[in-house]
Amino acid sequence: MAKEGVDMTEETEYMIDRNAGKEAVNVESPSNAKEMRAVVLAGFGGLNKLRVTKKAMPEPQDGEVKIRVKACGLNFLDLMVRQGNIDNPPKPPLVPGFECCGIVESVAENTQGFEIGDRVMAFLNYNAWAEVVCTPVDFVYKMPDDMTFTEAAAFSLNFVAAYMMLFEVASLREGMSVLVHSAGGAVGQAVAQLCSTVPNVTVFGIASCFKHTSIKDSVTHLFDRNTDYIQEVKKISPDGVDIVLDCLCGENTGKSLSLLKPLGTYILYGASNMVTGETKSFFSFAKSWWQVEKVNPIKLYEENKVIAGFSLLNLLFKQGGCNLVKSAMDKLLSLYEQKKIRPVVDSLWALEEVKEAMQRIHDRGNIGKLILDVEKSPTPL
Amino acid sequence: MAKEGVDMTEETEYMIDRNAGKEAVNVESPSNAKEMRAVVLAGFGGLNKLRVTKKAMPEPQDGEVKIRVKACGLNFLDLMVRQGNIDNPPKPPLVPGFECCGIVESVAENTQGFEIGDRVMAFLNYNAWAEVVCTPVDFVYKMPDDMTFTEAAAFSLNFVAAYMMLFEVASLREGMSVLVHSAGGAVGQAVAQLCSTVPNVTVFGIASCFKHTSIKDSVTHLFDRNTDYIQEVKKISPDGVDIVLDCLCGENTGKSLSLLKPLGTYILYGASNMVTGETKSFFSFAKSWWQVEKVNPIKLYEENKVIAGFSLLNLLFKQGGCNLVKSAMDKLLSLYEQKKIRPVVDSLWALEEVKEAMQRIHDRGNIGKLILDVEKSPTPL
Repeated sequence: MAKEGVDMTEETEYMIDRNAGKEAVNVESPSNAKEMRAVVLAGFGGLNKLRVTKKAMPEPQDGEVKIRVKACGLNFLDLMVRQGNIDNPPKPPLVPGFECCGIVESVAENTQGFEIGDRVMAFLNYNAWAEVVCTPVDFVYKMPDDMTFTEAAAFSLNFVAAYMMLFEVASLREGMSVLVHSAGGAVGQAVAQLCSTVPNVTVFGIASCFKHTSIKDSVTHLFDRNTDYIQEVKKISPDGVDIVLDCLCGENTGKSLSLLKPLGTYILYGASNMVTGETKSFFSFAKSWWQVEKVNPIKLYEENKVIAGFSLLNLLFKQGGCNLVKSAMDKLLSLYEQKKIRPVVDSLWALEEVKEAMQRIHDRGNIGKLILDVEKSPTPL
Repeated sequence: MAKEGVDMTEETEYMIDRNAGKEAVNVESPSNAKEMRAVVLAGFGGLNKLRVTKKAMPEPQDGEVKIRVKACGLNFLDLMVRQGNIDNPPKPPLVPGFECCGIVESVAENTQGFEIGDRVMAFLNYNAWAEVVCTPVDFVYKMPDDMTFTEAAAFSLNFVAAYMMLFEVASLREGMSVLVHSAGGAVGQAVAQLCSTVPNVTVFGIASCFKHTSIKDSVTHLFDRNTDYIQEVKKISPDGVDIVLDCLCGENTGKSLSLLKPLGTYILYGASNMVTGETKSFFSFAKSWWQVEKVNPIKLYEENKVIAGFSLLNLLFKQGGCNLVKSAMDKLLSLYEQKKIRPVVDSLWALEEVKEAMQRIHDRGNIGKLILDVEKSPTPL
């Protein structure tokens, strides 16, 4: 795995973190502890802004549960947060992370539906990368008995996003076709699995060449990101595709719209092309906003096309969508229990290894999900 | 009914047309006739560009049926065609009109599914406003036995458009809310009726004040176009609405987007605001294209919104969507036979009265559909 941009200064700091981690492992568990370990982002910037430190133990407020975290999900969005490359970023220092799973350790007053000892997964509006989190029960879901914590940390965000895009924003039905950019990523793999639950759906995946052997069985057709995939798709399906899922933004938007069949839907669910280097680039959020090709509604009218955006975190934390998400999660857990879907895990990392994990996702080296395993000790150098 | 813009020159010409019409009525019917009456648009412009003349009798080609027309639908789009205010307009002289109904008079070779005498409705890519039309069977549908020709001419375009927007582009479900601009128009009334086939759907209608008494029972809430309807809707539904259907374009686009709930869908299906006077205005198609507020996909991403365009005629005649339309028509005919929907007819006009009919739709004076009744004689002045 590449380590571009990780200089010696960082490496030294990393060693310090690593020791902090080991120390922390030793003090873990006592539920009356006053402190916990967490990944902290000291300021927006490169990997050197991340460290593992002790923080005051959080306590649940009315309507919240306190969760002893076992594993957390790492998403591309976490890189954009680190760079401050998002709209209205919160003020650092902050604890990153939007999803985790673990065991309910305590339950505040006016909190219904959960008991101490429940195995749960949860969405958080930041603060997920810690040994302990507190969050309102609206964002907490019980894990199936046979789901591991690793699976749970890989499940919630990616499968809910994939499900809602395919079935709520678009209306995936028998016989349709779907193009997914970043087919090797965690959302891409979730999309591929969910498509396979509907009869006769054709999935066109775009992925870097080196992932093809690993993921070729998950999609119908696989194309290299560097080929003229628009032409390749049109060779197979001259009329285009019904649904395009794009987490890249940028020039892919126009290309993808041109691939849509009449009544087809293009969904933008991320903008990872905005991240070009380890630190926030000239091609940053504000710039990108203006550089992205805007869409004229009259063009959509003439072409009978649909363009949509999907941000699960905004839906959950800014737009009051927790009931919609709960309903999607219920359907997904049923599919999981029927063994129709199963999260693909790329790799497990200790909290102290968050920088290497981020570098791996930055380099698009992953196939499936990167997990921060809170109980894992850093792998010796 | 207002007659603004109809000057004396036109009135004189109209009298000539009227006589032509009367003469034509006398020669109607013989199926071996070499000529037929049709409305002809001599060039793009005002009402004076329209006249009723004789044209050579069309004969069906392979895969086509020849239909003795009983009635035709008049749509706002026909005004835009008259002004040349559409993208890539065909070269005049031309016969306008996109829909009609009548009786199959002959069937060409390689034409399956229809017999002489069948009562049918049909979409045409122009040429509908005539005594006889020929069209491929892909665009022809059998009428239910108890449907009148007047109903049929009011049915196809508006109900298919309303159905596909509500159920194919958006996914109207129980408990949702729909805002429809031009609630008193033919599409607006079709939307209202289709919404009533789904439990617990709230319909917000926008219409000119003078229509309110007539249409108030068709929608849940009705607002005057000139009030601040955005605020009025928000008073009733603070979270906004699930679906907005807009045939106006212009400033309504931004306003309507702001009214959408998360995961809500805005559908543009017309741009009637582009028509401001009797002739093509400064605010014409090319101008409008640039004046319409363009949408940034990243904004859709942040807000979890969907924006779509729907043009039934492009779908049918440019994008090969006749199977999609056939499927919608089948469902609509079933709803009609269950007496769940019934087209609202505003008024019937002789071919020779097409100018007055167009003026009425231009002035937004209609409630429901304007029909050209081919067998009707002009009402004496």
